[in-house]
Amino acid sequence: MENIKSYVQQHKDRFINELIELLKIPSVSADTAYSQDVIDTAEAVKESLSKAGCDLVEVCDTPGYPIIYGEKIIDPNLPTVLVYGHYDVQPPDPLELWTSPPFEPVIKTTDIHPEGAIFARGACDDKGQMFMHVKALEYMVQNNVLPCNVKFMIEGEEEVGSASLAWFVERNQEKLKNDVILISDTGMISNQQPSITTGLRGLSYVEVEVTGPNRDLHSGLYGGAVANPINILAKMIASLHDENNHITIPGFYDKVQELSAEERAEMAKAPFSLEKYKNALNIADVYGEKGYVTNERNSIRPTLDVNGIWGGYTGEGAKTVIASKAFAKISMRLVPNQDWVEITELFTKHFTSIAPAGVKVKVTPHHGGQGYVTPIDSIGYQAANKAYTETFGVPAIPVRSGGSIPIVALFEKELKSKTILMGFGLDSDAIHSPNEHFGIFNYLKGIETIPLFYKYFVELSK
Amino acid sequence: MENIKSYVQQHKDRFINELIELLKIPSVSADTAYSQDVIDTAEAVKESLSKAGCDLVEVCDTPGYPIIYGEKIIDPNLPTVLVYGHYDVQPPDPLELWTSPPFEPVIKTTDIHPEGAIFARGACDDKGQMFMHVKALEYMVQNNVLPCNVKFMIEGEEEVGSASLAWFVERNQEKLKNDVILISDTGMISNQQPSITTGLRGLSYVEVEVTGPNRDLHSGLYGGAVANPINILAKMIASLHDENNHITIPGFYDKVQELSAEERAEMAKAPFSLEKYKNALNIADVYGEKGYVTNERNSIRPTLDVNGIWGGYTGEGAKTVIASKAFAKISMRLVPNQDWVEITELFTKHFTSIAPAGVKVKVTPHHGGQGYVTPIDSIGYQAANKAYTETFGVPAIPVRSGGSIPIVALFEKELKSKTILMGFGLDSDAIHSPNEHFGIFNYLKGIETIPLFYKYFVELSK
Repeated sequence: MENIKSYVQQHKDRFINELIELLKIPSVSADTAYSQDVIDTAEAVKESLSKAGCDLVEVCDTPGYPIIYGEKIIDPNLPTVLVYGHYDVQPPDPLELWTSPPFEPVIKTTDIHPEGAIFARGACDDKGQMFMHVKALEYMVQNNVLPCNVKFMIEGEEEVGSASLAWFVERNQEKLKNDVILISDTGMISNQQPSITTGLRGLSYVEVEVTGPNRDLHSGLYGGAVANPINILAKMIASLHDENNHITIPGFYDKVQELSAEERAEMAKAPFSLEKYKNALNIADVYGEKGYVTNERNSIRPTLDVNGIWGGYTGEGAKTVIASKAFAKISMRLVPNQDWVEITELFTKHFTSIAPAGVKVKVTPHHGGQGYVTPIDSIGYQAANKAYTETFGVPAIPVRSGGSIPIVALFEKELKSKTILMGFGLDSDAIHSPNEHFGIFNYLKGIETIPLFYKYFVELSK
Repeated sequence: MENIKSYVQQHKDRFINELIELLKIPSVSADTAYSQDVIDTAEAVKESLSKAGCDLVEVCDTPGYPIIYGEKIIDPNLPTVLVYGHYDVQPPDPLELWTSPPFEPVIKTTDIHPEGAIFARGACDDKGQMFMHVKALEYMVQNNVLPCNVKFMIEGEEEVGSASLAWFVERNQEKLKNDVILISDTGMISNQQPSITTGLRGLSYVEVEVTGPNRDLHSGLYGGAVANPINILAKMIASLHDENNHITIPGFYDKVQELSAEERAEMAKAPFSLEKYKNALNIADVYGEKGYVTNERNSIRPTLDVNGIWGGYTGEGAKTVIASKAFAKISMRLVPNQDWVEITELFTKHFTSIAPAGVKVKVTPHHGGQGYVTPIDSIGYQAANKAYTETFGVPAIPVRSGGSIPIVALFEKELKSKTILMGFGLDSDAIHSPNEHFGIFNYLKGIETIPLFYKYFVELSK
């Protein structure tokens, strides 16, 4: 398939400019202030799919943001690939840490990306990786090498829990019927060493509110005599981990799948430098659950992190106040077999139970999803591995990721098919952080590799 | 002194309206956005002192906001009363909890204030209480009953640590020479039971910053593998109290003055209903240091409270991020003999020492002050007590307050004179909280009582 290389070379400037246009629209699904932008982005995705060669493209209404569905059916007897991606992005804050505005994409070179990388919110997660599939389709249609049927399902609520997607999938099982689901919303080890994500963590995301006195109080007149909601919240959060950084919620680990010594030994083979890791983050040391190494702590082990906390006076200067309320956003990453609904209940029950009499506690579940594991002996995995091997010159390594794509488990449940996570991003791309970017090399390599997946998946399916 | 009563009756509407005008200016010293308003307030205070009868009024420049100095010297051989107050106010937030705008004063009646109370930021703390002294001077001058010399020193940085006042006092010891210092910036037990504050707590106010990774991280990819600054900050804050709510900072209690059983028994005589206290705050139970009751916890015992905390994503919806930094504002209330500078050093040393290797910690001292005790056998205390007894019909009870007026200790050190804290506010006036108010009864009663203090102080000084 040499022509894909030359086709990409021939059209790469246009491919890059088309992505840049998409990145200019601030499709932040978590903030209603951006709702029109999210809808505009959906429209732009629809047009790109039509142009790329889909026979049918629909903007499907949902209880939330629309889902873009596109398809090109060349022969009902051939396999069908369902491509999933999302057009919404994470909030860009803290804005002051961006070296260029998050929605004014610019190309800059970095040590890891000497050919340049596109800096913008969503460049990698997931507009850039989603758009690789659109351009791969364009190539296959233009050159009459599409070997099977293809369906696209691009949503706009991935960063806020995909509630509408679940609603949509449950109601469109026939329409979404497929033989394999293909997603590029993960990373790979390096530009020299591709990898395929075979495991994802589940997620339970909650918001907690601790209420003490019915109004803010003067910390001098009341300090020491009433429960201070901020001190209490800090104490409650601190108590969620023990001295070995095990999570203390009763029943939390009951269903956790322990890996065998062999599996852990296999994982340990993935290239990893603790020094480089610490230097990249500028930390003196790592920190985590006793008995596990870094690559296990962030992939095969469940975790609990506070994602945001606020309460009291946070402005300039000093205010001697005892706040009436304190808040935190807390998320737990779960591993296969942990049920996020059950974990959310365990958290709520425990967190409420540890509150002293002087405060009231409210726990509000945000969203969640189950963990997932892809068998490496599946046709999908093998096809992906052959594709990577051909474009990168080395086989891909299977890795377990700490991230969550809750809908992957949903797909298996509702659509009865396996998902292949062909990621082309890098850890250093700073997704969810200021200065998110996506390498030009990675973007074009993805467009080159995807058609090969189609080719080998059809061959291996025969 | 019956004429004071009739004078107040005759002029009370004007007295109220003049205070309302002063309350309309948002003199928030903690927020530079209000700096012009703070300066305008200083100007208004200057004019009110001139009108009230001061022979000399000056706007004294300082490194910060100006200090208003006013004086009326009738005879160098007579005693001199120095009146201190402040024209700056606390920030009004959270604004959404105010039933009327904080800088649009309105009079409303409450159960405790059937004659009505003025609702506005600063109504009680301290514009209302400060202005009582201006109106009392007006009365004494208009009616030729000022029995001694009087000096006013009204500052604009009390809510942010009085840094400029310390600077000013050190440089103007001769100008500020006095026989007693009179301050109304505290409260009394009730409108039926006056009290005089004989003890104040000291204060050490710091801001802490915990830095983990050099950028915000995806909580899925990094969760469990790096120290989360918010979780760590929560853990560090929680560790500052032990299971008995004693503060764990080494050396913190070394110089704390323990009260005798007799003194504690004396304190216990002050009327107090734990049920009413809990109901007023809508809390199921109080919370504090083991071995002490509520009225001891908030007065004779040192405390540590978080006044504000922030970090990570605090916006609408969910963001799965590990923040690079987390912050908190922490204040400690101190008791006599605890030195705030030493305590600040002990806190900084300890807080830095308990940080795990995965984070960096920065502690920035904001401001502080020493505690203070007024001897009840002093002439000033006795004069104040006689004044209250005459206007309220019952003697005042001496009480130790949990609040801090750091400059009181400074006055004794620099000016060698005692301070009398004649407070007319009530705990329920919600100072530092939304819906701060000051009773019309209290305001007018203060204006009535103050001239009697002058009268008895001069008599007792002979």
